[in-house]
Amino acid sequence: MSPRNDYHMTAAEFRKFGREVVDWIADYYEWVESGSVLSQVEPGDIRAMLPNDPPAVGEDFEDIFSDIDRIVMPGITHWQSPNFFAYFPSNTSFPSILGEMMAAGLGVQGMVWKTSPAATELETHVLDWMAKLLGLPGRFLSSSAGGGVIQDTASSAVVCAMLAARERVTNGQSNRHGVDQSATGALVAYTSNQSHSSVEKAARIVGIGDMNIRLIDVDDGFAMRVESLENAIKQDLAAGRIPFFVCATMGTTSSLAMDPLVEIGNLCGNLGGDIWLHVDAAMAGAATVCEEFRSINEGLEKVDSYCFNPHKWLFTNFDCNCFYVADRQALTGALGIQREYLRTAEYESGAAIDYRDWQIPLGRRFRSLKLWFVLRHYGAEGLAHHIREHVELAKQFEQWVDDHSDFDLIVPRSLNTVCFCHRLGDSITERILESVNSTGRMYVSHTKLADRYTIRMVVGGRDTKLRHVEQAWSLITQTAEEMDSE
Amino acid sequence: MSPRNDYHMTAAEFRKFGREVVDWIADYYEWVESGSVLSQVEPGDIRAMLPNDPPAVGEDFEDIFSDIDRIVMPGITHWQSPNFFAYFPSNTSFPSILGEMMAAGLGVQGMVWKTSPAATELETHVLDWMAKLLGLPGRFLSSSAGGGVIQDTASSAVVCAMLAARERVTNGQSNRHGVDQSATGALVAYTSNQSHSSVEKAARIVGIGDMNIRLIDVDDGFAMRVESLENAIKQDLAAGRIPFFVCATMGTTSSLAMDPLVEIGNLCGNLGGDIWLHVDAAMAGAATVCEEFRSINEGLEKVDSYCFNPHKWLFTNFDCNCFYVADRQALTGALGIQREYLRTAEYESGAAIDYRDWQIPLGRRFRSLKLWFVLRHYGAEGLAHHIREHVELAKQFEQWVDDHSDFDLIVPRSLNTVCFCHRLGDSITERILESVNSTGRMYVSHTKLADRYTIRMVVGGRDTKLRHVEQAWSLITQTAEEMDSE
Repeated sequence: MSPRNDYHMTAAEFRKFGREVVDWIADYYEWVESGSVLSQVEPGDIRAMLPNDPPAVGEDFEDIFSDIDRIVMPGITHWQSPNFFAYFPSNTSFPSILGEMMAAGLGVQGMVWKTSPAATELETHVLDWMAKLLGLPGRFLSSSAGGGVIQDTASSAVVCAMLAARERVTNGQSNRHGVDQSATGALVAYTSNQSHSSVEKAARIVGIGDMNIRLIDVDDGFAMRVESLENAIKQDLAAGRIPFFVCATMGTTSSLAMDPLVEIGNLCGNLGGDIWLHVDAAMAGAATVCEEFRSINEGLEKVDSYCFNPHKWLFTNFDCNCFYVADRQALTGALGIQREYLRTAEYESGAAIDYRDWQIPLGRRFRSLKLWFVLRHYGAEGLAHHIREHVELAKQFEQWVDDHSDFDLIVPRSLNTVCFCHRLGDSITERILESVNSTGRMYVSHTKLADRYTIRMVVGGRDTKLRHVEQAWSLITQTAEEMDSE
Repeated sequence: MSPRNDYHMTAAEFRKFGREVVDWIADYYEWVESGSVLSQVEPGDIRAMLPNDPPAVGEDFEDIFSDIDRIVMPGITHWQSPNFFAYFPSNTSFPSILGEMMAAGLGVQGMVWKTSPAATELETHVLDWMAKLLGLPGRFLSSSAGGGVIQDTASSAVVCAMLAARERVTNGQSNRHGVDQSATGALVAYTSNQSHSSVEKAARIVGIGDMNIRLIDVDDGFAMRVESLENAIKQDLAAGRIPFFVCATMGTTSSLAMDPLVEIGNLCGNLGGDIWLHVDAAMAGAATVCEEFRSINEGLEKVDSYCFNPHKWLFTNFDCNCFYVADRQALTGALGIQREYLRTAEYESGAAIDYRDWQIPLGRRFRSLKLWFVLRHYGAEGLAHHIREHVELAKQFEQWVDDHSDFDLIVPRSLNTVCFCHRLGDSITERILESVNSTGRMYVSHTKLADRYTIRMVVGGRDTKLRHVEQAWSLITQTAEEMDSE
């Protein structure tokens, strides 16, 4: 190895440490099952192990590397553990990790086509592949007036969708003059009271405001009631307000409920205004790689924008949200700002896409690489295999809950998500959750549904198999029995 | 290796392919200098090599891997080449790549403290380190009422800053009722006509509108004229409008000009209203690791928020923007939305930070890991060494331009950025730029300054040394001579 005369790590050192990190990662997936899923540290524990001041001179990488196990790992909650059943999964896979490694190594920034044509074109292409893989309508393909782009998250996607809607309904006047939500003529957005917090957050960000977002009530299955949506829209119209945005959720955060998309689309169409219909399928969208779950997509041919997260249930590292629009000009019209220093001949001729106009940031990572690796490694067959297996495991778990006299299903299972509680009420349900999580042997999270404290069991880990779901159920029932007998 | 009975790549396979990818990356940094910097493909060339449809069944990773060299590499513009002098750098380093690898391998999602305490606490700590390293005021440390957070880019940071400002000046009414930019009482933002496009983009996104952002004129050095700012603010006040946001740029995109921050801060203070002063130091902020460039930070003690990008000039993989606020409650008050499924005891007790309330997305990658690796590997000394070397090289280049009778400096060099043109005007300057870029031996980009087509030479590559800058100048002057003699 050459002397570190310029402070850089040499290529030879990188080969050595890179191998060590690769082995460390491989080892991690071999032992993570046996570790505590939920980190057991207290606030401040990790910082207490770190020096107050930054290093004045460089340190050996061996020392940095060894601090991972000493300082970082105690503070890790293991999302990749097969015993992680909390929130929604953020599963990954070795091909995806290799894609991230390569993207980091290349270090390109694809803000415009010219700054790495492959980053733009592979993204366009892989998003077309994904649309075909999920059976999405042709209007989302790049060969149509629409197309897809990778965003970091569904949160950013809904901001972009709402901006495109805001500009379309105001003919660009909001960008020009600012938003005007004074008494009459206010823009109004609609989503169910089960939708993700990001929809409300987006309404705040883009200047619509809480008062102008209607959280529509839901039916017994926690799906949006179309009749209530219709009434709300009609009331706003009668009051002179302007309904401009509806977000339907295919797979709500609490219970993976599916809004009635066909009816919502028909309603928006029949009302004849200029309502942008966005679909947030962040979690459930991945399931449509399986033909048998394609009903989730029914109604998408009337939708203005759609997104789902391969970084949840499709073995692709966070972050990776696939966001599609039916009319890309509505998006770029809302988000495009030209500057001399970004002008390129390829863009101005219309021959190339500059994705910077499709998103909030200017810069872009080469995220399509990992997605390309995942789609090619697994193929449609491999991805569908795992989605099916997870759904089957959740079905099994649902059956156990249903058969057990101490537990109630809050709502029938949706795909891989089972919502349940103890029949004796919130207090014991919450105590069961806290108790099982504190063992470190599994991790589930909670929500409230129909005003009941609810445990959510979501099966979506890369390596989650029957035995992990069995262990989880066994731990839950044993814990409940101990509490019953207290 | 075990059979691929479940479609997953095995840990053993990952060890093998991971090593190959590590070696591929190390090789890349060894040959990138000799490759064409700017990709020479035409729009559509990359897509033409990709199959129309996604694979139905999985493929061997060997085949996927070999397609990198065959399909992707021709479409790469090499940001890591030592001959890349375009835009601003997005330099990286082996320690940063190792950090990205490890973050990808761990696959944790740090949206709240509990979902990986180490991800939150390391981020808080490393941002404190960074503030100390750059000599930022104490108000940005986590021990004060403020603190830092990693955003993807300065674009997202300015959206967050503007939202915090908007909510502060309206007492939260914008989030509640929506933005009201009708005739009187409109909120107005100010920045120079040299500031980054993201400031205008932010004003559109958050509902302020183009009509309510003043692009203040600049002096001969392209720095904001404080007198013009004062006049603009006073005119708006007289008209009943509400000045609420000023963005000062320390290092503009075109010429790395520095706005007069002390005077701007004094002005905002003296006007006595509720103006949020944000500083975009995306590129130049990194230079303040060197004591001799600390004057850039003068005036920061009166600033509400500040950001810079380690992913530009501090050897850290894109994306990584360090965003600091003096009052974290102003930020979380604007961006926080509570949901039952995200409630944790640690957050509610005030013992932990949940960074989801500091940004637009909900989910978060473990980005502090790579930054920690970089700071520890280089130490303050190593980072300062390279910043100094880049500035010295740019100084040398500036001298050559100044000494050459055919070329004019548009403005004196700022740090590592030299702006120049051919004395015979725009047409030949543009032809020189296109010609040198088309050779693939270097890459520079352009802007317009004082209405002149301007070549920007920015020295910031990890491996850029004197000989690369010499080669670049030699190619530029030879090209100019050939054109002169045509």
